Amino acid sequence: MTAFPDLAAVEAMDAVDPLRSMRDRFILPEGVIYLDGNSLGAASHGAFSELQAAASKEWGQDLIRAWNTAGWFDMPTELGDRIGRLIGAAPGQTVVCDTTSTNIYKVLHAALAMRPDRSVIVAEGNSFPTDLYMAEGVASTRAGAVLRLEGVDAPSIEELIDDKVAVVLVNHVNYKSGELRDMAALTRKAQAAGALIVWDLCHSAGALPVDLDGANVDFAVGCTYKYINGGPGAPAFIYAATRHLADVQQPLSGWWGHARPFAFEQGYAADAGIRRFLCGTQPILTMRALKGALDDWDNVDMAALRKKSIALTDLFIQLVEARCGAYGLKLESPRNGTKRGSQVSFEHDNAYAIMQALIARGVIGDFRAPATVRFGFTPLYVGFKDVWQAVEILEDIMRTGAWKDARFAVKSAVT
Amino acid sequence: MTAFPDLAAVEAMDAVDPLRSMRDRFILPEGVIYLDGNSLGAASHGAFSELQAAASKEWGQDLIRAWNTAGWFDMPTELGDRIGRLIGAAPGQTVVCDTTSTNIYKVLHAALAMRPDRSVIVAEGNSFPTDLYMAEGVASTRAGAVLRLEGVDAPSIEELIDDKVAVVLVNHVNYKSGELRDMAALTRKAQAAGALIVWDLCHSAGALPVDLDGANVDFAVGCTYKYINGGPGAPAFIYAATRHLADVQQPLSGWWGHARPFAFEQGYAADAGIRRFLCGTQPILTMRALKGALDDWDNVDMAALRKKSIALTDLFIQLVEARCGAYGLKLESPRNGTKRGSQVSFEHDNAYAIMQALIARGVIGDFRAPATVRFGFTPLYVGFKDVWQAVEILEDIMRTGAWKDARFAVKSAVT
Repeated sequence: MTAFPDLAAVEAMDAVDPLRSMRDRFILPEGVIYLDGNSLGAASHGAFSELQAAASKEWGQDLIRAWNTAGWFDMPTELGDRIGRLIGAAPGQTVVCDTTSTNIYKVLHAALAMRPDRSVIVAEGNSFPTDLYMAEGVASTRAGAVLRLEGVDAPSIEELIDDKVAVVLVNHVNYKSGELRDMAALTRKAQAAGALIVWDLCHSAGALPVDLDGANVDFAVGCTYKYINGGPGAPAFIYAATRHLADVQQPLSGWWGHARPFAFEQGYAADAGIRRFLCGTQPILTMRALKGALDDWDNVDMAALRKKSIALTDLFIQLVEARCGAYGLKLESPRNGTKRGSQVSFEHDNAYAIMQALIARGVIGDFRAPATVRFGFTPLYVGFKDVWQAVEILEDIMRTGAWKDARFAVKSAVT
Repeated sequence: MTAFPDLAAVEAMDAVDPLRSMRDRFILPEGVIYLDGNSLGAASHGAFSELQAAASKEWGQDLIRAWNTAGWFDMPTELGDRIGRLIGAAPGQTVVCDTTSTNIYKVLHAALAMRPDRSVIVAEGNSFPTDLYMAEGVASTRAGAVLRLEGVDAPSIEELIDDKVAVVLVNHVNYKSGELRDMAALTRKAQAAGALIVWDLCHSAGALPVDLDGANVDFAVGCTYKYINGGPGAPAFIYAATRHLADVQQPLSGWWGHARPFAFEQGYAADAGIRRFLCGTQPILTMRALKGALDDWDNVDMAALRKKSIALTDLFIQLVEARCGAYGLKLESPRNGTKRGSQVSFEHDNAYAIMQALIARGVIGDFRAPATVRFGFTPLYVGFKDVWQAVEILEDIMRTGAWKDARFAVKSAVT
């Protein structure tokens, strides 16, 4: 990359992009540069095709028989193992189910029970909030349990880890800044202190290579509707290391987690494997869209994905700073690509209005309170020219002051 | 109805059925008599249409903007209120979310916390098992909590209710026998002893009129993929009486239940209303199919629905006993229609093979271990002639011994 790439240089980057053909698998609206795949991934033809089959043929024609003929009951583990490839998990350790929030409850509760002589849960003050809310919820079920937060109780999470800590709940990539944690190092640190660790992969699964087994992680959770492109509210996943499966117990002990769900026994007996993290009947239609989305991932080289992700985000930072530097946008994400997920955030006092002006011009990122514009770069369907064009529009909005239009000042219910 | 109706009499019943036109809204496979809507309701054109719009237009084209433009975030309460009409709940008390199992956990946990000086959970030994498994899970989170079961610790649930009981968890209609409980009487009995009551409506919501407000119920849960026809694994619902909303706390305190979810606050503050029972991001595509299914319910008269349901099930019992009485099928459901849900079960030592033989002939009911053939009658799309034809085929299978074919003896993974 040259110091100040021009359009020709950017187009040349697209021309040699080994993931370029992936874009054709996705349905992207005309006139939109979609930089919000870190919030809701785009739809693919494959996802729609699976959804259509699940609805028309399986539900519509096979009806109840589809539980057997279409393998609905096994989808949580089948799709779990396919996500496993993206997150460095050998088969049998990942299951797709429920929501990230619910899954955090299951694994945190289970981890706390595995350390009965310890009472502290450590998390990040700047975590995506639901992680903290769920940790509060888990703590409320055990007398004496305490939640300690990075940024509140100590400057760094490492300083909070001591021999009273039962479990550390930490985000691999911060939802707002995009900062990427060193998974292996923090896992070692927590385990050396006798604690267990839960990684939240919402902003790293499908965004970059993850190596849960290699880092000896205990538990992880994550969502499938961001970089994995499973669709709005697609079910989340849980990873539990094989070494914990025989003994771990979680309290959402529903029939789908039973060793013999169709024996209709009176007492609960957990499945011997990862299915013990299941609870109730899963949303099959949504899960089938996720199956289609995972088909898209079949031949994706995760190292190439990461390389492109860093190149996209590096280019965006470079162009924004070069072309919009005079307008008060301050980089909030790590400048070093190896310390960053696949997203870039800038701070600005008028972040909300700026993002609304961008969206009105077809550049879709999002706003995060109080003052962040956030842009996600999904390497499967975002190209280098998209980055160029997005910055062209951003520069125009900043230069002309278009964001000052009154219609951009009113906040929507969901921002 | 005559004592032994003939085909002409049955066709006459269809001719005057006020719900007859509803059948045209549904997609039913050719050559199938579908008597398993109590396990998975049939798909309707409306459900497919909503699903298609949610996928193609909203996810595919609007992408992240659909959270605002398509009202995704408000669907749990919007659909909750519409289900409210079917279960006798005034607006603001019902929310659609997660699974029945997870929702049982929330309400049982919350109810136990509302009775800190009591430690007993009462349930039915012959409950659908996940209710018991979830009660076990909740009990495991509180020292001293005990689960006492009808049929195990006492012959009737009423006998288990005393001043040590915190909460009674009970099914409105038994999943296997179809027995219907007296909601108002049992609610009074539990509350008179100072206990709270949770009704599981999985087999009554959409099957018959339910009057939660009228019976002064505390909490209820239920599923939407049976009689409500929301689709496979469609999200479940929770009802909480208005009088409890200000104080009730449930531990799955995720961001969707927060008073200000998009303020991204560090601490949890529950929504003032029924949204406090939400947890994480809901499966939007599946929920939109449910929205379509609820459109079908808009003008359904619940009294007419009940009248037809009793007539269908009465006819089925009468015909089976008259024509198949010699073959060892023993009625397991209440004979009195007013004590029965919209399903009929018979016991037979060879129940599994008989059901497989029926399915092979296009009559779809289901088997419940160890020895039950179960038939559900969804008044919206099952007609009287369907009942006649189903019994014709059953009689043929019993008379010829067709069920003895070796291929009907092998149990599927999911039965």
